[in-house]
Amino acid sequence: MSEAFDAVEIISTKRDRNELSDSQIDWIVDAYTRGVVADEQVSALLMAILLNGMNMREISRWTDAMINSGEKMNWENLGIPTVDKHSTGGVGDKITLPLAPLVAACGAAVPQLSGRGLGHTGGTLDKMESIPGWQASLSNSQMLAVLKDVGAVICAAGTGLAPADKKLYALRDVTGTVSAIPLIASSIMSKKIAEGTSALVLDVKTGSGAFMSEPERAKELASVMVELGKRAGVNTRALVTAMDVPLGLTAGNALEVRESLEVLAGGGPKDVVELTLILAREMLDAAKVSGKDPEVALRDGSAMDRWKKMVKAQGGDPDAPLPTAKEKLVITAENSGTISTMDALKVGISTWRLGAGRQRQGEVVQAGAGIEIHAKPGEKIGSGYPLFTLHSDESERFERAKQALEGAVVISEKGEVAERLPLVITRF
Amino acid sequence: MSEAFDAVEIISTKRDRNELSDSQIDWIVDAYTRGVVADEQVSALLMAILLNGMNMREISRWTDAMINSGEKMNWENLGIPTVDKHSTGGVGDKITLPLAPLVAACGAAVPQLSGRGLGHTGGTLDKMESIPGWQASLSNSQMLAVLKDVGAVICAAGTGLAPADKKLYALRDVTGTVSAIPLIASSIMSKKIAEGTSALVLDVKTGSGAFMSEPERAKELASVMVELGKRAGVNTRALVTAMDVPLGLTAGNALEVRESLEVLAGGGPKDVVELTLILAREMLDAAKVSGKDPEVALRDGSAMDRWKKMVKAQGGDPDAPLPTAKEKLVITAENSGTISTMDALKVGISTWRLGAGRQRQGEVVQAGAGIEIHAKPGEKIGSGYPLFTLHSDESERFERAKQALEGAVVISEKGEVAERLPLVITRF
Repeated sequence: MSEAFDAVEIISTKRDRNELSDSQIDWIVDAYTRGVVADEQVSALLMAILLNGMNMREISRWTDAMINSGEKMNWENLGIPTVDKHSTGGVGDKITLPLAPLVAACGAAVPQLSGRGLGHTGGTLDKMESIPGWQASLSNSQMLAVLKDVGAVICAAGTGLAPADKKLYALRDVTGTVSAIPLIASSIMSKKIAEGTSALVLDVKTGSGAFMSEPERAKELASVMVELGKRAGVNTRALVTAMDVPLGLTAGNALEVRESLEVLAGGGPKDVVELTLILAREMLDAAKVSGKDPEVALRDGSAMDRWKKMVKAQGGDPDAPLPTAKEKLVITAENSGTISTMDALKVGISTWRLGAGRQRQGEVVQAGAGIEIHAKPGEKIGSGYPLFTLHSDESERFERAKQALEGAVVISEKGEVAERLPLVITRF
Repeated sequence: MSEAFDAVEIISTKRDRNELSDSQIDWIVDAYTRGVVADEQVSALLMAILLNGMNMREISRWTDAMINSGEKMNWENLGIPTVDKHSTGGVGDKITLPLAPLVAACGAAVPQLSGRGLGHTGGTLDKMESIPGWQASLSNSQMLAVLKDVGAVICAAGTGLAPADKKLYALRDVTGTVSAIPLIASSIMSKKIAEGTSALVLDVKTGSGAFMSEPERAKELASVMVELGKRAGVNTRALVTAMDVPLGLTAGNALEVRESLEVLAGGGPKDVVELTLILAREMLDAAKVSGKDPEVALRDGSAMDRWKKMVKAQGGDPDAPLPTAKEKLVITAENSGTISTMDALKVGISTWRLGAGRQRQGEVVQAGAGIEIHAKPGEKIGSGYPLFTLHSDESERFERAKQALEGAVVISEKGEVAERLPLVITRF
């Protein structure tokens, strides 16, 4: 009993708005991971944390306890600096796909452990898995081999990394406790720190389509994560970026891979290219690598070469045709004018309903499902012109996907365009 | 899906400080009772309720939902008014034992469904079970028969009564969510309303030895419970009474039965007699019965007669010797003077450690364990004179029981007596 704190005492401490001690945090995270403390006890604690908060010491210790629940990776023998990027998720956010090979082409190594999507924002692994043959799972030694050979690897986190986070994330998902900043920050940072990267750039999205729709909350999350990274010796930066309007002209899985290929080929939508370059420069700067200008690497094909090598290294065929959905439905503009707004959340929910996302962990997503956007805010459109093309393998999904898009787009006959968030709102 | 609210949505509603709708409350209480919603989801909701509260409509609906989870008893065919009393629990609070037969002797019927103790306050059933042969469990028809025959029955609530409360109580116990007023009030009142009594007197304890140590919280609980009773058509009153000092001169199981017998024989400690008479008069008034003065019923033996009939009706032998503990330890005063204070909580914890109470549901308690108090605040004591006698079947329990009593008693050489709570602090 000398070390075995009673779980009820720990819950009560946070319930009563007191600070959890280091040893209380260490004990409960470890005991929960080992199955000694029950789900119902931890969910009560999580709700108390959500409502009463944790200070920086508590969040940092909680993060350390999650890291210590599993293995920690190390890339020091790689010989080149490592840098990773994490996005909190947005609609049409495919940036990781062109970014990882681009940064590798510029001289830094990118060990990207990614996740699958849940809810209306897509997951990087779901997008990559739409490439024929591509496998998300790698052993640690396979990951090291790809990283040495290609300079960039995108793969699923192994089960050995922060197992406490896997249990806690699943529990938060069913108990309404996902949205607590201390829990989000520790979840993200425990995995990124355990992943062993020496530098990290966080892309914290805000606006209707983001998990943190309010800029103030996004800023808070960004600053907490930067502090956690610094405390762990990871050179960490965060950009708070716009997610009021979808990124680029596609939302889905294979659809976003196609758009990423356009970027890697030197083309692609302006906002996707701009954010990719901003993040690439930030990552190279954080990794203290100044070999090559990322803009050049997109133009000269070196980023695309890295992409192809990276896809092949994980069994994918970079030249195979990407899967397409069985059914399509074009949605047209009801009046002519200038597109004033396009709500990212509504587009995201519609994409999800088309089958591109999942409602519960473990569900299979459709590779071809998603939305093509034919015009964005500021552009003129004629009545009856195509606004969106919906893609799905099941035409019965179109009705509810259309419903989700109601009011998503406002067309101004007077040519007015609603105020938008700047692409980069702030930096930490 | 039309009726099946998502549990996460309900949790999020209360997490975000919004009101739960009637249908949300009905659904979650029913779904939890049926096992459709998981413990970890309900514990997160309970913590959100504890921290964000519920308004009177929500508490009332929650109570109704718990009542509707099981059967409802009905005593209308009994022909005499029913009235029950509930205490929130205190150290040495044996009042139910003399009170139920006393009120029966005065002309009202008392259908007492009681519980077992958990933590430092004892349970009425634990005390009654120290009587050789006495059985707590009765079927509904047996309960009716005893009530008809004796006018008072003390027994365990059957499993059919408010099963939602049984599940919720066990969950609250391990998740640090016992102390929420909406949950306490609905737990107590759902059982008392389902029990079918037409009038009810609540004894809400406050002071160090009470569950609600702060008078303001006790008053809040009392007023909420009275409102719940009124909404359900039960003539409900509440007294907020003192639990800063133990009630009477004993705390334990058989020890408290013995003291109750003294009261029924016309003697007993002044505070126990006074509170018993106050509650008896309140109950008779609430039941609109004015046949006999309770003070007379204690004096003339009619209350004792009822007690004996009541004990016999449940297999007990009212004349058999009560069990005694195997070991005793006398604790003496270290100096002489006037007893200034005696902390109820410390005496309660010591009693618990002696084996009179349980730490986890289902544990067996010792019938003979407990504490005899030889002098109370305001009384003079000489150095070396006995202050307490500890009783336990296991002498190894004495050390920790003694530790719990450290600082429990302050003796003033100048004859000062600390201010006490009045026996009855307020009424609702």
